[in-house]
Amino acid sequence: MRLSFASLAVLTLAAAPPPPAAAPVRSPGDAVKAVPASDWIEIPATDLLVMDLAGGKHVVIQLAPQFAPVHVANIRTMARTGYWAKATIYRVVDNWVTQWGLGDGPFPTPPGVVARPPEEYQRGPAGLTLMPMGSPDPYSAMGAYADGWPVAKQAGGTVNPTYCYGAVGVARDAAPDTGNSSELFAVIGATARRLDRNYALVGRVIEGMENLSALPRGTAEMGVYAKDQLPTPITAVRIAADMPAAERPRFEYLRTGSPAFADYVQLASHRADYGVPSPGADLCAVPVPVRKKKA
Amino acid sequence: MRLSFASLAVLTLAAAPPPPAAAPVRSPGDAVKAVPASDWIEIPATDLLVMDLAGGKHVVIQLAPQFAPVHVANIRTMARTGYWAKATIYRVVDNWVTQWGLGDGPFPTPPGVVARPPEEYQRGPAGLTLMPMGSPDPYSAMGAYADGWPVAKQAGGTVNPTYCYGAVGVARDAAPDTGNSSELFAVIGATARRLDRNYALVGRVIEGMENLSALPRGTAEMGVYAKDQLPTPITAVRIAADMPAAERPRFEYLRTGSPAFADYVQLASHRADYGVPSPGADLCAVPVPVRKKKA
Repeated sequence: MRLSFASLAVLTLAAAPPPPAAAPVRSPGDAVKAVPASDWIEIPATDLLVMDLAGGKHVVIQLAPQFAPVHVANIRTMARTGYWAKATIYRVVDNWVTQWGLGDGPFPTPPGVVARPPEEYQRGPAGLTLMPMGSPDPYSAMGAYADGWPVAKQAGGTVNPTYCYGAVGVARDAAPDTGNSSELFAVIGATARRLDRNYALVGRVIEGMENLSALPRGTAEMGVYAKDQLPTPITAVRIAADMPAAERPRFEYLRTGSPAFADYVQLASHRADYGVPSPGADLCAVPVPVRKKKA
Repeated sequence: MRLSFASLAVLTLAAAPPPPAAAPVRSPGDAVKAVPASDWIEIPATDLLVMDLAGGKHVVIQLAPQFAPVHVANIRTMARTGYWAKATIYRVVDNWVTQWGLGDGPFPTPPGVVARPPEEYQRGPAGLTLMPMGSPDPYSAMGAYADGWPVAKQAGGTVNPTYCYGAVGVARDAAPDTGNSSELFAVIGATARRLDRNYALVGRVIEGMENLSALPRGTAEMGVYAKDQLPTPITAVRIAADMPAAERPRFEYLRTGSPAFADYVQLASHRADYGVPSPGADLCAVPVPVRKKKA
């Protein structure tokens, strides 16, 4: 008697003892829950920029001095001197960016602000430990993580941070050296990586992202708010280290060189908890886990 | 006398006739402007779903019967029978999706609606002409375009449409065959391609995207609107073909098999108009151009 393969399989199963229950499919969230306390690294309070908005809302940005030291120094100086006292959120472009600052200037900047920072768009790999992300990255030779940030390594060996959702960059005019961090933007859409290596990336939004992404889109040219639209007032901009200790927000991120992080990246790149697993993932679809630090 | 290379270049230029002006860097927009009229294809009025929202706003969705024929037939039936008369937008999750419909049901569906459509998550390549996108796609063996849509070809040979920004999919419960298109969602963030091959993709938003993406985020579980939040009423849902001819919106898309489209994809994948060109691009960062058709 000739048996089809399917029939044979059924017979084999029927004769064998029942298989052990399948292991439950682990999600990236499961991996994060299992991270040991020693693999969470607190973000320095000097690297947290806290923006209060009208209506009791706020946004917290983690600064990236590893990648844009002069711009980050400018930001700290402008926050500490009250430069942004009359700043607003005045530009929102769907699937692109939300932008804030004082708007059309130039306005005099406080002493210590470098008017024309160097082009902090990419850097050498020295001092960075790259953990390869594992999926092809169409914007570079290799997508990776370093120092808690998603980065791209280019064929020439340079490393640049990447314009993923929530990334904060420096607005400027057409000439590359015309931004000083007085006007900033955050990515609120899907397709901003063409800014990589062309605009300085100074941080990322780690809390209150919806207060930038859900704003009405600007209807004037380039998505700037038209005269009949109300820009959102920014009522205070502070570095967390300058706030009273009891008010300071505290955050921590998952150490990107740890086995726990590698486990998370593996699960997030080949998600099986939805059903059909993917052969890989976009670098920006696998963000570095960041969470509030418990007191 | 020994001349440095720089000095030599100056001398050479001084002695030679002035070079022709460098060709201006072309942008993807320049390529789209140059498309001949014959390469714009009108979207059939039966494939346009028009949703009117409270406040005089609207959203236009291009349906994808090539990829989800049973779901699209369900959508046309529900639109034509007034099924969505009391529908609202009731769920908004930052960097993820906006969802609408009647909400928690089940509600009786009109005659002709298939209660449990087949799993229209992927299909065979027969009848599709794939134009490779040209950059690596971490979610498949090859990113491509077919019939005006971004698609992924998997190692096994199947083709699936991709969850890019604005893609519209079928909400469902955990079991794969529990969606009937009565509840739909649109991607409003950067990271939805893990839904590829797991949720039926039935269309994409081609107008009024900001009316879905700029809504307040839901604060109850899973991003559903809490009791103190007002869902956005959907005041009418129609197929354009059923509207009076004078009111019908008309749209056209760039033929994905055309040389003009290939030119556009090449420029959009290696953008040089920002400065440093990228070695490639994400499939979702190079959308198929769609525009209003002039009367």
